[in-house]
Amino acid sequence: MATHIRNIRQILTPVSPGNTPLLKIENGTVIVDESGIIYVGGTAGAPVPQNSDLVIDGTGQILTPGLIDCHTHLVFAGDRSGEFIRRTQGTTYSEIAASGGGILSTVQKTRDMSENDLLRNARIRAARWLSQGVTSLEIKSGYGLSVESELKLLRVINRLKQEFPGTVQATFMGAHEIPPEYRDDRSGWISVLTQELLPEIARNQLAEACDVFCETGVYSLEESEKIARAALQNGLKIKFHADELTPLGGASLAARLQALSADHLLCITDDGIRDLAASETVGVLLPGTAWYLKMPYAPARKLINSGATVALATDFNPGSCTLDQFSFIWMLAALYMSMSPDEILSAVTLNAAKAVGIHHITGKIEPGFRGDLVLWNSPSLEHLIYHPSLNHAGKVFASGQLVWQSEQWNECLFI
Amino acid sequence: MATHIRNIRQILTPVSPGNTPLLKIENGTVIVDESGIIYVGGTAGAPVPQNSDLVIDGTGQILTPGLIDCHTHLVFAGDRSGEFIRRTQGTTYSEIAASGGGILSTVQKTRDMSENDLLRNARIRAARWLSQGVTSLEIKSGYGLSVESELKLLRVINRLKQEFPGTVQATFMGAHEIPPEYRDDRSGWISVLTQELLPEIARNQLAEACDVFCETGVYSLEESEKIARAALQNGLKIKFHADELTPLGGASLAARLQALSADHLLCITDDGIRDLAASETVGVLLPGTAWYLKMPYAPARKLINSGATVALATDFNPGSCTLDQFSFIWMLAALYMSMSPDEILSAVTLNAAKAVGIHHITGKIEPGFRGDLVLWNSPSLEHLIYHPSLNHAGKVFASGQLVWQSEQWNECLFI
Repeated sequence: MATHIRNIRQILTPVSPGNTPLLKIENGTVIVDESGIIYVGGTAGAPVPQNSDLVIDGTGQILTPGLIDCHTHLVFAGDRSGEFIRRTQGTTYSEIAASGGGILSTVQKTRDMSENDLLRNARIRAARWLSQGVTSLEIKSGYGLSVESELKLLRVINRLKQEFPGTVQATFMGAHEIPPEYRDDRSGWISVLTQELLPEIARNQLAEACDVFCETGVYSLEESEKIARAALQNGLKIKFHADELTPLGGASLAARLQALSADHLLCITDDGIRDLAASETVGVLLPGTAWYLKMPYAPARKLINSGATVALATDFNPGSCTLDQFSFIWMLAALYMSMSPDEILSAVTLNAAKAVGIHHITGKIEPGFRGDLVLWNSPSLEHLIYHPSLNHAGKVFASGQLVWQSEQWNECLFI
Repeated sequence: MATHIRNIRQILTPVSPGNTPLLKIENGTVIVDESGIIYVGGTAGAPVPQNSDLVIDGTGQILTPGLIDCHTHLVFAGDRSGEFIRRTQGTTYSEIAASGGGILSTVQKTRDMSENDLLRNARIRAARWLSQGVTSLEIKSGYGLSVESELKLLRVINRLKQEFPGTVQATFMGAHEIPPEYRDDRSGWISVLTQELLPEIARNQLAEACDVFCETGVYSLEESEKIARAALQNGLKIKFHADELTPLGGASLAARLQALSADHLLCITDDGIRDLAASETVGVLLPGTAWYLKMPYAPARKLINSGATVALATDFNPGSCTLDQFSFIWMLAALYMSMSPDEILSAVTLNAAKAVGIHHITGKIEPGFRGDLVLWNSPSLEHLIYHPSLNHAGKVFASGQLVWQSEQWNECLFI
């Protein structure tokens, strides 16, 4: 049995990672079966459905690959609205962190919450991502910061992976902060990470990648490299929170170590841009966080014009970006980073797939690729970006299965 | 039969318009019947429910007045995503308007759409506002710009008024632009407004207020005053789009003519602030529009510190703010205008009620006031502001009736 999506107003898909033009097909049809996508082309030349096939009419709608949110911290407990309000009155994020707030306040609550409660919350959050067309979702640990709690978080992510209709990618981020217990023994915690946690995670296949917050006052370049090399030795891919608050050089480190991605890049230098552009490392931009922290946006145009591959993600987390609404990220990218609609679509599909290492199976609409697709209640890609406050996802397919469809109130009324 | 909302974690309500402290009651109860609110106070001292009463448990939740969106243009047709994308590439809103885009492109499509289709779309949009806790909604005409089309829009708004479970306030805004047919005969159109449309609107009670876009290149101060005085003579209240793109002096004009409100104020001068503060005219701030147009935000702190009464609204429209999501406006007000949670709540309830002249019946929780209430799936007002991407409205009451309640996925998971 196959699923035919026919009469689609426009199919839009990247063709290869990077900044290449989208393939656009007017009045198109896509056919998927259990093996993946088997036809992409005009409706006129498409195979005729068999009696047992599911036929969906895409008249007036557009079809894109399933979205990929390649940077989230969605497993956590607790509320940080108090520090948010303090920030609106002028306190900086760094000042709050220095006074014991910030990540560490979430760590305490996350340690205290049971694995089952964390899973319950993560499940509800992931369902909201799916409803927005996100079929692949990266989730980082990093609010445990103890052996026991980090493993608990990775178990939550892995249990969610079994349930989620799309794909969940697990990233170990024990190097999200220095645990309060190791404030005076940084090298002790780094030994726990490299000699205890990483081998245990590898043995139990609890994560695909390891991320390090390479930042002034958090992990130095040298410490970041040490942790990343241990991750590589244990068979994990690597990622970095790089050049977010200060221009420390994390992007260049990421490029040198052939990381999957260097993320944030608000303060990336011209050298960092050059190094990223010369590498296969994806620059993951998180404009929701810049907006939320009132910092200058990452230099998206410079990165793209230099030839770097750029992805966009939510960075959803309780301290520096509470926006669990992917469409809003698109609009920030258009309005405040001057990214074009085509660049934005590539950045949330195939480029994002590359940032988590799954660009060979998802992120574009092409025969042989997985049937991860979104049929949007929107006449154009431009409209999706222009009107982010409505969820336009009409039907969401993961591996060819219809896994979510809209009900009331997401009609596109701008006609 | 009465409705009891008991065990509310916290009741929050303004007490009088302006910038006075909120009344906050912990573990509170509110009782409403067909006459309005009949009890506000602690649960311990509240009257006991009768058998026929509806009892709602508010444990863990907060209760506020129903929200009031006092500035929208939600009756329109057509999509302006193309000009949005041009703006992201550097074209300004004024340049787009000068080249025949902007408001006039919406005018053509709105003229072409039937009254029934416009009503259908407005109905769906209004339901989304209600689902966000908005029980009073102001809607402006102004995309018709002909006698026939302006009356059509006002009929749509008035038909919606009959259906909407909360309150719809109709504002006539034939002075939204100069119609293309009158480009060379401005005074001819102003005569149509003042001698034909306003008397007809008054005769048929089609609008409560009249709004004028007082702006360089649109209506001058003198023209704006002429139209406003005609509105007053016909028994309508008046409002102005004032000092939005240039510091023309609209706020001072509004204060001098005792307008209900002066809206936008991105470019208000110190003289304008002083005049507003000395008047009963409400300053309506629309930060979504500033964000969308990438302009500096209105000087909220200066206005509030000077003693002006400040409201916040969405300005939802297809050209300069497509954000049909009120919570996002709150967050912009906190993050980019340094308004406190208490100031924000006043600005979207009682102060907004004053901006449309209904502050004697709604906008606060007090015996005798209408039972327009929202029970939020949130432990605090601060959380609502900090996490705007989720709709936290749990139960919405208009005139004491439960008119909307949440279903899945709006649990507050930050616990």
